[in-house]
Amino acid sequence: MDIFEVHILGCGSALPTTRHNASSQVVRVGNKQYMIDCGEGTQLQLRRSHVHFAFINTIFISHLHGDHCFGLIGMISTFGLLGRTAPLHIYADAMLRKLMQPQLDFFCKELKYQVVFHDIDATKHEKIYEDGLITVHTLPQKHRIPCCGFLFKEKPKKRHIRRDMIDAYNIPEYCRNAIKNGEDYTTPEGDIIPNARLTTDADPSRSYAYCSDTLPCPDNIPYIAGTDLLYHEATFAKSEAARATATFHSTAEQAATIANNANVKKLVIGHFSSRYENEETLLAEAKETFPCCEVAKEGKCFKIQ
Amino acid sequence: MDIFEVHILGCGSALPTTRHNASSQVVRVGNKQYMIDCGEGTQLQLRRSHVHFAFINTIFISHLHGDHCFGLIGMISTFGLLGRTAPLHIYADAMLRKLMQPQLDFFCKELKYQVVFHDIDATKHEKIYEDGLITVHTLPQKHRIPCCGFLFKEKPKKRHIRRDMIDAYNIPEYCRNAIKNGEDYTTPEGDIIPNARLTTDADPSRSYAYCSDTLPCPDNIPYIAGTDLLYHEATFAKSEAARATATFHSTAEQAATIANNANVKKLVIGHFSSRYENEETLLAEAKETFPCCEVAKEGKCFKIQ
Repeated sequence: MDIFEVHILGCGSALPTTRHNASSQVVRVGNKQYMIDCGEGTQLQLRRSHVHFAFINTIFISHLHGDHCFGLIGMISTFGLLGRTAPLHIYADAMLRKLMQPQLDFFCKELKYQVVFHDIDATKHEKIYEDGLITVHTLPQKHRIPCCGFLFKEKPKKRHIRRDMIDAYNIPEYCRNAIKNGEDYTTPEGDIIPNARLTTDADPSRSYAYCSDTLPCPDNIPYIAGTDLLYHEATFAKSEAARATATFHSTAEQAATIANNANVKKLVIGHFSSRYENEETLLAEAKETFPCCEVAKEGKCFKIQ
Repeated sequence: MDIFEVHILGCGSALPTTRHNASSQVVRVGNKQYMIDCGEGTQLQLRRSHVHFAFINTIFISHLHGDHCFGLIGMISTFGLLGRTAPLHIYADAMLRKLMQPQLDFFCKELKYQVVFHDIDATKHEKIYEDGLITVHTLPQKHRIPCCGFLFKEKPKKRHIRRDMIDAYNIPEYCRNAIKNGEDYTTPEGDIIPNARLTTDADPSRSYAYCSDTLPCPDNIPYIAGTDLLYHEATFAKSEAARATATFHSTAEQAATIANNANVKKLVIGHFSSRYENEETLLAEAKETFPCCEVAKEGKCFKIQ
């Protein structure tokens, strides 16, 4: 099955520490790579990871707090120094374009590629991106400023054509794609062979949801129901629940409750407050509610099978 | 003797690598700390170093290439989150203020301290800063955009008053400061004791010069003559001399020639091109011309005795 994986480049929160970088991750689907958020130091984390700079053409920015976007200008500049020519598409709040254009005009005069900003409306759940492999929908979050998560969904895949049927009916190469797409096969003699006899089910379309930074958002549950992998912020432990609410963040338990109610297959928690020296408490609290949970960590790669 | 030391936070060049961070260093004199340049990731390097965030009140930016200033916005924002209230003074080209103000207004609305920009003219050699301990002068550099180095000089120090003379003449406490400042002492009987008899020479005033990014600038030699420590960029080896000239940078040999002609006490080379896997060649080439040379390295601290 094609690759579908999430590389964690940074899973700290507002204060970067020597343990956690600011938020950034790369979603790899097949031969494409999509970045989510780009905190300071992301370009260095990219170098440390096995993600290739040149394959990142699309970046989704959840919201305009520095720990989610201060790494953009340096990375864009470095892409230029590395000779990039392919356009770079950035999906973000319209304000980012306004803030970055003067910087790009001054610092990146010699860029040989285009930086294309696509404004997104964080208050709506809507499709903002589509290519041959996936769609990306926004997931409105509840934060101090406009903020949205992102839902990555593979497009429906082709059915598997049965090797024994190809041989039995001697099906020519040029007919096979239509059969993979669900069509029946008509033999040279005019017999119609129903598709169900020729094929087995397509691989299921996988999905990944990214939710950060936010108070728990039950409104998003219908959108992320059954998702293969959910990354949800878990900035605080239960003991800091009041602070979580005051700062529009979630506790690990709240993240797990969302995962549980949405019946996702797996939860990864991240966006850890710098106050925690490790994530044991956060993980334990999340697992009480949703056992299939892991903690994010810089350099970790979560594969969706 | 009071502390006078230079902490290297980053000594890479335009492309950050996993070996070298973008340019930044902290000069510590007595109980004061001054930052020079602030490339992306500087705040994380500060955390890794033994330099205390709160004691940095003054930042000098040599020029507006990203690898020397992209770390400012993140660090300013973090200072705010850490509860800073003391003003932060930034000495830089006037354009920095224009580029940063919209970012500060948007990202750092809740800052409880003032960011004060001081415009500097990189084309002139002039005093741009002074406090009780030091003066800082600009050193015009030859780069692709306006750029200056910085010369840190301790102010003249007080003479040492001789313990045996204090006892012999029973010099009261309140008279001693004037004697340390070079005045003679008049005894209650009216005898004048010349200062030279009462004191020994003051400690010499130390100095540190930072030169990056630049073609070799012999014009600066009179200003940095005899300096205790010179940090000079050495982006390239001799084999890349043409590229050094084309990009307005120096080779290690050129840096050493400046050190030699200025008769400085010690040279530290830095701002290494990402093409070098280590700095052995650069160091060897510099040492051929100026043996008292070391390479910069993240985390290294150069003490001036």
